[in-house]
Amino acid sequence: MYTLYYCPGTASMVIHLALLEIGAAHELKLVDVEKKQQKDPEYLRLNPNGVVPTLVIDGRPYLESAALLMLLSERHPEAGMIPAAGTVERDQWRQWIIFISGSLQSAFRAWFYPSELGFEEHSEATRAALQQRIAAIWDQLDLHLSKNGPYLLGETFSAVDLQLTMLMRWSRNMPRPATEWPALSKLAQLITARPSWQKMMEIEALDVWPKARN
Amino acid sequence: MYTLYYCPGTASMVIHLALLEIGAAHELKLVDVEKKQQKDPEYLRLNPNGVVPTLVIDGRPYLESAALLMLLSERHPEAGMIPAAGTVERDQWRQWIIFISGSLQSAFRAWFYPSELGFEEHSEATRAALQQRIAAIWDQLDLHLSKNGPYLLGETFSAVDLQLTMLMRWSRNMPRPATEWPALSKLAQLITARPSWQKMMEIEALDVWPKARN
Ligand SMILES: N[C@@H](CCC(=O)N[C@@H](CS)C(=O)NCC(=O)O)C(=O)O
Ligand SMILES: N[C@@H](CCC(=O)N[C@@H](CS)C(=O)NCC(=O)O)C(=O)O
Repeated sequence: MYTLYYCPGTASMVIHLALLEIGAAHELKLVDVEKKQQKDPEYLRLNPNGVVPTLVIDGRPYLESAALLMLLSERHPEAGMIPAAGTVERDQWRQWIIFISGSLQSAFRAWFYPSELGFEEHSEATRAALQQRIAAIWDQLDLHLSKNGPYLLGETFSAVDLQLTMLMRWSRNMPRPATEWPALSKLAQLITARPSWQKMMEIEALDVWPKARN
Repeated sequence: MYTLYYCPGTASMVIHLALLEIGAAHELKLVDVEKKQQKDPEYLRLNPNGVVPTLVIDGRPYLESAALLMLLSERHPEAGMIPAAGTVERDQWRQWIIFISGSLQSAFRAWFYPSELGFEEHSEATRAALQQRIAAIWDQLDLHLSKNGPYLLGETFSAVDLQLTMLMRWSRNMPRPATEWPALSKLAQLITARPSWQKMMEIEALDVWPKARN
């Protein structure tokens, strides 16, 4: 039995999606980030970093979305989110998860949390630098997908695609959202058509994304 | 046979240490970051991110120090860098590696690369904010080690201790280096006394660290 501490639309989304892909029994507990509930002393006992997600398994809290994604994928190989152990694909899968969380997710963290860099708001120079860093990552991922897609591992869906699609969604209000890159947009279409995504969107009560083109 | 593309004192150090712990045959190839060799077209074909380390195995390049550390630890369980599969410790081990790389290593990246945030040099406000973020992580790790140490996983050494010690070394010229925290300092003493550390320091030709106290 899994208990996921989550907040709609945040880094907990990929873990919510993984639980739905697995079809595992789970309980959701809302941590309202707008209300700063992630800094409540009770929650900090579970997650001293004061962030979502936290996943509780057998009474024990586990942290870090990238680690949780690997943990759930490994425990439930039948869900098809992870290549077989001992294959090159398995190592590449792990490398993608770590690259995406270390480069893309951390650039978004800088983008959304100017105070962690000592600012009330980012200067134009910092906004431009972060936009450029994020765009360079979209370039790189789009090139990879256009050659080796439609999924990050090629023909087969895996957990990394959930992670990347969550992060693409975070760019939706940026001057140049990820869906302007064609192979990324195609991946977003594939992932958002999955039953797990549809169910997650309903439960987290989020607006349809990507918006239909016209 | 492993080939490690490295530069002394950088993020490749933890992978160099892991290879020495394992005792695996390996070749070292210097990528001189001062000379910007990590941006040479030939190197970018191996590592499109233009950073060290890259580890080549059977002619195939693998990237991301955190992923490489997991890969080598898993492939060589006899080296004792990783808890057994299916244990709680194994999940905690992975969580530490990801937490340390996502929080600590990425804060150091911001500290050492102001241009990635649009600056030639950091302002006082940004320096202070990054110092505070890094110090908060040392606080948290020191508290953990003082209760559950001397190693991150308790009584037993693992790959995470190599990763953390490398990052502690990166703080040596900061106003408040990690070794000012007692349990962190104790861990640094344990790790730097290992044969792998001594050999790495000799090969990478680095100055003794931590400096002896007087
Ligand atoms: N490295 C963490 C970061 C999680 C994270 O940044 N969560 C955000 C929401 S997307 C959060 O809880 N923010 C509230 C805060 O930092 O106070 C993970 O991947 O689990
Ligand atoms: N996420 C990468 C980051 C590696 C990294 O930042 N390497 C630095 C040296 S510590 C580098 O190569 N810097 C040169 C550059 O960025 O141009 C990893 O952990 O392998």
